[in-house]
Amino acid sequence: MNKKVDVQVKVLSENDKLAAEIRQRLKEKKIVSMNLVSSPGSGKTSLLEKTLAALKDKLNMVLIAGDVQTENDSIRLTKAGGKVVRPIVTGGACHLDAKMITKALADVDLANVDILFVENVGNLVCPSSYDLGEDMKVVLISTTEGDDKPSKYPGMFRRSSVMVINKTDLLGHSDFDMDKVKENALKINGNLKIFELSCRTGEGLDKWFDWLLSLKQTK
Amino acid sequence: MNKKVDVQVKVLSENDKLAAEIRQRLKEKKIVSMNLVSSPGSGKTSLLEKTLAALKDKLNMVLIAGDVQTENDSIRLTKAGGKVVRPIVTGGACHLDAKMITKALADVDLANVDILFVENVGNLVCPSSYDLGEDMKVVLISTTEGDDKPSKYPGMFRRSSVMVINKTDLLGHSDFDMDKVKENALKINGNLKIFELSCRTGEGLDKWFDWLLSLKQTK
Repeated sequence: MNKKVDVQVKVLSENDKLAAEIRQRLKEKKIVSMNLVSSPGSGKTSLLEKTLAALKDKLNMVLIAGDVQTENDSIRLTKAGGKVVRPIVTGGACHLDAKMITKALADVDLANVDILFVENVGNLVCPSSYDLGEDMKVVLISTTEGDDKPSKYPGMFRRSSVMVINKTDLLGHSDFDMDKVKENALKINGNLKIFELSCRTGEGLDKWFDWLLSLKQTK
Repeated sequence: MNKKVDVQVKVLSENDKLAAEIRQRLKEKKIVSMNLVSSPGSGKTSLLEKTLAALKDKLNMVLIAGDVQTENDSIRLTKAGGKVVRPIVTGGACHLDAKMITKALADVDLANVDILFVENVGNLVCPSSYDLGEDMKVVLISTTEGDDKPSKYPGMFRRSSVMVINKTDLLGHSDFDMDKVKENALKINGNLKIFELSCRTGEGLDKWFDWLLSLKQTK
C-alpha cells in the first residue's frame, strides 16, 4: 500500500506544479478564478446561468464546465449567453485536475477577462484534493440535501472560501435547518463567506452578483 | 502514468478477491445484500430508517453505514430500530471498499440474517468502481437533483440493478421530469428496476417494502 501512497503523492505534486503555473498566468492577467464544487444537482450550472444572464454586460467571464459524461452543462451555459465556454468530459474520472484546465484554456484569449469560473464534477469528496490554480473554491449545497453535509464532508468545506446555500425556495419542505448548517460549516471553517439564495426564484442572487462585481480588478 | 494504472489494477484486484469472499459468505447464509449509492443527501439513510421502522419485525436486517466523517448515519439507524448497525468512517476516502466491509462484518453473527444493507459514502462516481461483494447496487436519486443525472453519471446507473427515485413529494417544485429521468436511466441500463417514492410522506414505500419482503430466502 506504500506504493499506492507514493504514486498519489507524485501525481498530486505534478498537479500542483501545473496549478501553480495556471495561478501565475491568471494573476498576470488580473483574472479572479473560482472552482465551483458540490454534490450532483446542487445547482452549480443554474447559478452560472443566472450569473451570465445578469452580468454578461458587466463582467467578461470565461467558463469551464466539467462532467463525467455529456457536454450538457456547457450547452446550457452557452445558451445562457456564455461567450467563452469550454467543456471537459472526464470520461469516468471523479474530479477535474490542473492538466485538464491547462488544456481547456489553451485556445482562450485571456486578455480583458474578469472572472474564470470552473464548474467541477458533481462530487463533494474528491475534487477537494485537486488544486486547479483557482483563487478560491466555492462550495454549493442545497436545502434539499440535509443540514449535516458540512460535518459529513468536512474536507470540502475546510478548503472552500465561499459557501452558497441554494434552493432557499424549498425551505420548509424538509427538516433543513439554516442556522444549523451555517453553524456546522463555520465550525469547520470560520472564514467561510456565506450566501443564501434560490436560483429558481432569484431570491438572494443580488448579493452574489454584487460580490462578484466587487471582485473585478482594474486592468 | 502507467505506474498509476498498474497500482490501481492491483488495488482493485485485491478488492475483488475480498469481495468474492464476502459474496460467498453471504450466499452460504442465504443473505441478500444491497449496496446503496447516491449523491450526498438523496435519502439513503432516510430510506433505511423507514425500512427499519416498517419491516424490523418481518426481516432480520444488518446495516453498515459508511461516511467520510462522523457516525451520524449509524446513530440515526440505531435510533430507528436497527439492532445490528456498524459504522465505517472512511476518514476522507470517497468510497467504501471490500476490506472495510470484511472488517465491519467481523463481529456480526450472520445466522438468520435476511438482508444486509450497505450505505455507501454519498458520491455518484467513485463507489461504482468498488465491488463490496453485494448482490446488487441500489442507486438513489432525488427529484431535486435534476433529471439529467443518469446521463451525466452513467457508470453508476449501468452497474446498478435498482433505481430509487426519492422525494416525489417535491415534484412540481422544480423542472424535474419523471418520464425523462426514467427514459435516460433505461437507455443506459434497460434492466433497472425502478421505484418512485417519498421517504417524507411515505408515498410509494409500500412497493419498496413488498419487494424487499419478496427477496427473503428460506433458511
